[in-house]
Amino acid sequence: MENLAHTLQQRREKLAQLIDFPVILWSGGASPRNFPANRYPFRASSHFLYFAGLQLENAAIRLHQGKLELFINPPKEGSNLWHGDTPQPRELAETIGADAVYTMNELILHSSEAATIPVQDAKTYQKQMLVLDRAIAPAHQPMGIDLELTKAIIALRLCHDPTALMELREAAHATVKAHQAGRRAIAAAKTEAEVRAAMEAVLISEQMTCAYTSIVTVHGEVLHNDHYHHPLQPGDLILMDVGAETTTGWAGDVTRTWAVSGTFSPTQQAIYDVVLAAHDVCIEAIAPGVEYQSIHLLAAQIIAQGLVDLEILRGNPEDLVAQDAHALFFPHGIGHLLGLDVHDMEDLGDLAGYAPGRKRSDRFGLKFLRLHRPLETGMVVTIEPGFYQVPAILNHPTTREKYQHLVNWDRLEQFADVRGIRIEDDVLVTATGKEVLTADLETQ
Amino acid sequence: MENLAHTLQQRREKLAQLIDFPVILWSGGASPRNFPANRYPFRASSHFLYFAGLQLENAAIRLHQGKLELFINPPKEGSNLWHGDTPQPRELAETIGADAVYTMNELILHSSEAATIPVQDAKTYQKQMLVLDRAIAPAHQPMGIDLELTKAIIALRLCHDPTALMELREAAHATVKAHQAGRRAIAAAKTEAEVRAAMEAVLISEQMTCAYTSIVTVHGEVLHNDHYHHPLQPGDLILMDVGAETTTGWAGDVTRTWAVSGTFSPTQQAIYDVVLAAHDVCIEAIAPGVEYQSIHLLAAQIIAQGLVDLEILRGNPEDLVAQDAHALFFPHGIGHLLGLDVHDMEDLGDLAGYAPGRKRSDRFGLKFLRLHRPLETGMVVTIEPGFYQVPAILNHPTTREKYQHLVNWDRLEQFADVRGIRIEDDVLVTATGKEVLTADLETQ
Repeated sequence: MENLAHTLQQRREKLAQLIDFPVILWSGGASPRNFPANRYPFRASSHFLYFAGLQLENAAIRLHQGKLELFINPPKEGSNLWHGDTPQPRELAETIGADAVYTMNELILHSSEAATIPVQDAKTYQKQMLVLDRAIAPAHQPMGIDLELTKAIIALRLCHDPTALMELREAAHATVKAHQAGRRAIAAAKTEAEVRAAMEAVLISEQMTCAYTSIVTVHGEVLHNDHYHHPLQPGDLILMDVGAETTTGWAGDVTRTWAVSGTFSPTQQAIYDVVLAAHDVCIEAIAPGVEYQSIHLLAAQIIAQGLVDLEILRGNPEDLVAQDAHALFFPHGIGHLLGLDVHDMEDLGDLAGYAPGRKRSDRFGLKFLRLHRPLETGMVVTIEPGFYQVPAILNHPTTREKYQHLVNWDRLEQFADVRGIRIEDDVLVTATGKEVLTADLETQ
Repeated sequence: MENLAHTLQQRREKLAQLIDFPVILWSGGASPRNFPANRYPFRASSHFLYFAGLQLENAAIRLHQGKLELFINPPKEGSNLWHGDTPQPRELAETIGADAVYTMNELILHSSEAATIPVQDAKTYQKQMLVLDRAIAPAHQPMGIDLELTKAIIALRLCHDPTALMELREAAHATVKAHQAGRRAIAAAKTEAEVRAAMEAVLISEQMTCAYTSIVTVHGEVLHNDHYHHPLQPGDLILMDVGAETTTGWAGDVTRTWAVSGTFSPTQQAIYDVVLAAHDVCIEAIAPGVEYQSIHLLAAQIIAQGLVDLEILRGNPEDLVAQDAHALFFPHGIGHLLGLDVHDMEDLGDLAGYAPGRKRSDRFGLKFLRLHRPLETGMVVTIEPGFYQVPAILNHPTTREKYQHLVNWDRLEQFADVRGIRIEDDVLVTATGKEVLTADLETQ
């Protein structure tokens, strides 16, 4: 753990180079499920985790000029009957290299002029305002020193240090294992739920959690499908979007789409090859300095070209992309930042994902893009092109009319057995180009 | 689903026989995890589920004189891209047999003089107060009509109707399957986490969730152990406390303790037999009219007798129980109510668990008892005796002195390989006695 203390020291020293006011970050509290003692698994705020390294509940840290102070209460009298011996505050302080340790009650005595970022649970958010004795704007619209702090943390968290990369590799490794188990489980599985079970069992075995709600479905056209009751039928595709999260909060995020029967139909294979080509070319294009949006548009271009070749779209791929025709079938972004959050720093709205001065486009083909920055060495991003037949899009009267002549609707009907395909990997931007963290997982 | 509507109608008609004022119950909202779009799996409030039957998010129901009104917003424009086609309010209303359906904004127009029970998530709790335009005391200390409502709901939920029993049987069935898989997994597992994975995979496969945080540990002496990293070693016992929850929220709760090697040591077998005897005798004692506390004391008596026979305790079992000597090794209650919550209605503090006028005892051997009522036909309770060597209890100077002569400490040392054993089943009180819902799971 000496390594952890060293890493945390480097992180707060970098922070001190960017801002000179004190910072207090809260970890948050566990959310109750159906009664107070029956709680969801606790997950500390990512900003806290970045500088504190441990999932400490109801704790706070104060960072100032490279110093770290930990605020946490000792275990309650009698808690060892229920929870065993838990580390004392002094031991925790030593593990993370804190310069001092106090109880949470003492936090108010050290709260003067401090900046913060709101946590997710409403109770702790109230406490943050009480302790700082002021309003705190929502995390996606920070004001004053909170905005300065937010920008500084984004600058740090955008590009990962070696400890973060070690964690991300661990998450990627477990995610790959889960996907391998999922693919193996398909043949014997009767429902989506059984494949999901095989995948999540790997994560539980590895003492990890899911970085997000797993998507394991034969209805890949529902982008955030969280139902698992459908039976698996021989002609179906099964889309599996499952990612591991390490004990200290770092995420993996991978999607694979396989044929339930083990063999794609000719139409499924044809579309799969288009998506895979987009996947491969986009990853190949990753390098420092490259605009992520250009990678998104590259995917759009390849998908449009592929669909023209398959006679589903009509026209010139560039013109089709300019008219957002690709987005009829690829209605989301090519990917996003990956780090302590699966959509890293999305609690900050687009402040992390979009470079200063940039705003979301209104264009159908761009508005769901979560990342619009030039890539930098040390960033980890996902690349996740897809093809979907979403009834809500394809049957929408306005869409239907607008794209009446660009889509060969009769030809499209021949591809009815392709409801949704996505292929997603996690990619580190390196000085010389890129490294696919999830490269051990096959795409064919 | 006609059956559901019929059941819900019967439940609210029974409620209308007990109270004549209107009632509004909120379902609550999903809690965000590390950013707003990454949420914990939604779980509706149990009181809402009892009368609404479905896990509807950000919804409310109004019950008055046997009528049911549903308040829920239609799916947002564009949400079908991410979530597919979700049922419209009118369809939901039909499924649950609602007499009318409104949007959530309209709730305030129907909120006059209504009683409620606070939900678990802080944001919805705030909304409850805004809509009712008054303070709402915490669920465990309700006031005025909220207290009247609480008492009426307790009267209903204490004894289960046929639909509830069907759900509880389903939860019990999946829980048994998970435990069977867990036991099979022990031989090949290297860590606690691998056994947990095998058990929870069954629940995921069955499209269920965990009714509570699983305990799967070689350190059974930590009562609510939520770590899974310990290696399994041949001489260890592994304690597995895992329960299923059905999609509509009904819980199972079972514990088994097995030898990692497959064979108990003589000392482990001796203690296991004591706990199993307590388990069997307590279940045998269950019948309508029997005081649950007398069953707890029966377990205490049998454990004390067993430990006297093993020469760990000295004296007469009755005297030992009167002095709480059993609680040195059995420091929790014999069980609790089971229903929509694993500790059913524990959000109401002891209002459900303790008969009117009864309060928690201060006695070491009674204070953790969660249920202190005469049993009634239709109740489901757990029976879960245990034996633990908790260092925090056994090494506590005061305890050590008080029980100096009642414990044969040298003899106890010979049982060092028994850190924690618990055997738990779910039992329905029937008119003629009892039925063990989890009887398919072996205890030997």
